[in-house]
Amino acid sequence: MTYKVGLLGLGTVGTGVAKILQDPAGRHPLLPNIEISRVGVRSLAKQRDVEIDPNIVTDDLESIVNDPAIDIVVEVIGGIEPAKSLILKAIDHGKHIVTANKAVIARYGNEIFSAAKQKGVYVMLEAAACGGIPVIQALKQSLGGNRISELTGIVNGTTNYILSRMYFEGADFDKTLAESQQLGYAEADPTADVDGYDAADKMAILASLAFGDRIKLEDIYREGIRSITSADIGYAKELGFTIKLLGIARRTDSNTGGKDDSNLEIRVHPTLIPIQHPLANIHGVTNAVRIEGDPIGEVVFSGPGAGAGATASAVVADIINVVAALKSMPNNVNQLMGCSHEHYAKIAPIENTVTQFYARLLTHDKPGVIGDLGTAFGKHCVSLNAILQKNTIHDGLAEIVVVTQRVSEYNFQQAISSIRDLPTLHSIPTVLRVL
Amino acid sequence: MTYKVGLLGLGTVGTGVAKILQDPAGRHPLLPNIEISRVGVRSLAKQRDVEIDPNIVTDDLESIVNDPAIDIVVEVIGGIEPAKSLILKAIDHGKHIVTANKAVIARYGNEIFSAAKQKGVYVMLEAAACGGIPVIQALKQSLGGNRISELTGIVNGTTNYILSRMYFEGADFDKTLAESQQLGYAEADPTADVDGYDAADKMAILASLAFGDRIKLEDIYREGIRSITSADIGYAKELGFTIKLLGIARRTDSNTGGKDDSNLEIRVHPTLIPIQHPLANIHGVTNAVRIEGDPIGEVVFSGPGAGAGATASAVVADIINVVAALKSMPNNVNQLMGCSHEHYAKIAPIENTVTQFYARLLTHDKPGVIGDLGTAFGKHCVSLNAILQKNTIHDGLAEIVVVTQRVSEYNFQQAISSIRDLPTLHSIPTVLRVL
Repeated sequence: MTYKVGLLGLGTVGTGVAKILQDPAGRHPLLPNIEISRVGVRSLAKQRDVEIDPNIVTDDLESIVNDPAIDIVVEVIGGIEPAKSLILKAIDHGKHIVTANKAVIARYGNEIFSAAKQKGVYVMLEAAACGGIPVIQALKQSLGGNRISELTGIVNGTTNYILSRMYFEGADFDKTLAESQQLGYAEADPTADVDGYDAADKMAILASLAFGDRIKLEDIYREGIRSITSADIGYAKELGFTIKLLGIARRTDSNTGGKDDSNLEIRVHPTLIPIQHPLANIHGVTNAVRIEGDPIGEVVFSGPGAGAGATASAVVADIINVVAALKSMPNNVNQLMGCSHEHYAKIAPIENTVTQFYARLLTHDKPGVIGDLGTAFGKHCVSLNAILQKNTIHDGLAEIVVVTQRVSEYNFQQAISSIRDLPTLHSIPTVLRVL
Repeated sequence: MTYKVGLLGLGTVGTGVAKILQDPAGRHPLLPNIEISRVGVRSLAKQRDVEIDPNIVTDDLESIVNDPAIDIVVEVIGGIEPAKSLILKAIDHGKHIVTANKAVIARYGNEIFSAAKQKGVYVMLEAAACGGIPVIQALKQSLGGNRISELTGIVNGTTNYILSRMYFEGADFDKTLAESQQLGYAEADPTADVDGYDAADKMAILASLAFGDRIKLEDIYREGIRSITSADIGYAKELGFTIKLLGIARRTDSNTGGKDDSNLEIRVHPTLIPIQHPLANIHGVTNAVRIEGDPIGEVVFSGPGAGAGATASAVVADIINVVAALKSMPNNVNQLMGCSHEHYAKIAPIENTVTQFYARLLTHDKPGVIGDLGTAFGKHCVSLNAILQKNTIHDGLAEIVVVTQRVSEYNFQQAISSIRDLPTLHSIPTVLRVL
């Protein structure tokens, strides 16, 4: 029996999916049972990199989600609309969904999964977060025996590419971003990547699967990498760290010391990582996710973060999963493939985070500056782990870098606030958290 | 509905499985549907680290595989017999199997999977190879859209622990092995680990899943790590390599140049790995598997190689998978969870391998030695990539290390053979392959 796929979108990912399905030799034996029966595109005139029978291509996307012959709708259009409405309509018509759309899932997963549950259809999203790393299925199934305590990840390829180049070349952010845009590694409007929105979308999806609760995107603390300078990278190196845009999600049972009734801490921000940490050596556009669970301990997955091949691979894996399930049990849903979270996670406010901090300060080069800083930190119970002062740089300003011990975000921000009032302080160009 | 598990074996892994199932909070929501209904042990008298109702414990293991009430038999006894016979009997009685037994699967997988197919039951083996890395399910499902070209792995924790210590401490093999035995990282009889048998068992399983063919264990070229000395580790470091016991399996389409009708190359041996390779920085008992596929590119998984927690986690993942499948489709087998290989891979003979080699030679310190070596290599079309000669060491012997370019194993061995006949040669303590 053949299963019919309606493909919404024939950009790079859609093209990649079509190519895999057209060339099944040496791949999974189920592939020949899958047929692309209709393809929806925005422009019929556009030249494509794959041969598709023109009779099955349409620009009437609605006609695909309504088509009674179609079993699985694969949504690889991207963006919020019309993707979201098409997914919901397809579910309403009893289609199973495979999507690569992190933006829609992170924002409307609630609505979509509730609808899917009611209709008894699958919504598969391996491609929506780190397509090149088979981490979603691991979270849904392979790690099911574990109580997961922490999930950290380099989940955005563009920022990792930029930070890797800054690390190896000592280059500045603006220059590196411009070059990355020229090379096609960063978008013309890089906001979604460099300001951490894309990473936050992915962390919402991954954390929801890891911890079994729904996550509201607006609860995720988010900070991008625009403030990172080559000076910070240099100091980080000297102190034995690298800087990565990291997504961090962990249970708060132990970490917040019961300051709130949260069960989860989740944040995306540039982070100093000790150079021997498994995520510190993930460079370029590669993504990696580290999961800590009981009893498994530490598991790390790495792979291509994005790109047509990786995303198409994940989409096809999801199609295969749905087809295998449909073959053996057309009328029942396999619980491992569904998403059945009913409750929202209680996310701890960022002030309650306990972590180490890195700060780079510019001060007027006068006697007593270090003493002033030390007093201000001490007053707010912030102990220091390292302090570096290099030569006076220019205009009578001295650059001082401090790394704190583990302290609460609240205490640290209080200390920073009182330091800003010091007459000897010029400015605090960078404040970063340390893993 | 509750599913009944018959647990064969209550050693460290069995105990770990029981503990997870007894404490489901924060783990997969299916766990409360799973009941350990009987436990088979060798000795009823032995003290256990987990509380089990004595009424369900028996030393009559046959009575468990025959018990009509049991849905899933979990075999964590280890060793060939009685494990193999119990698995086959359980299948014959229509039980689904979850096993951590790499030795049985690598040797009798053929018979076991054929029987399981006939009976329509699952044989799940995530725990049988690299339990702490969810790689089996990735190969069966998440990577299904890919044509896999290569799978390489550090799949034995004991040897990786020994080689890591030798690398960091410059210690000798015998001393490190003895200490590893004292610390419990190596068995009293270390043969299975240090001679590569355990790694070959795992590679048979992983390669079979990656490439879709059955593998005969005796077709796997295997070499252990006993010949590695601290001198070799030192030279490797100097040349920018580390030494790991590596399992390597790859399609031979391109590599053998059509010298035979093989479709696969598969081998386990100590290997020099460039220090920037993702597997080079996997230290201690950690395992890692690197998979290369089209279109995904390179994916790397790492995690604990063994240990009760990691193996129990994999066993429980398999139980959950079977239970989820049974809940939704009690009478049909999900094709993604089965193993349906019918054909044996045609493994290329080791002589046809094309790779770089490392050799450490002791020669009499006479003029013309390097010339003699160069001529012998050249005669057999072996080009050299690097040659190192250090100070005369003792008794008039010089130590010379060569690294070749990529050459066929056949040509290299011919060259080595003719070098052994040189009057200036004393001995060739080490020959290793380079990744």
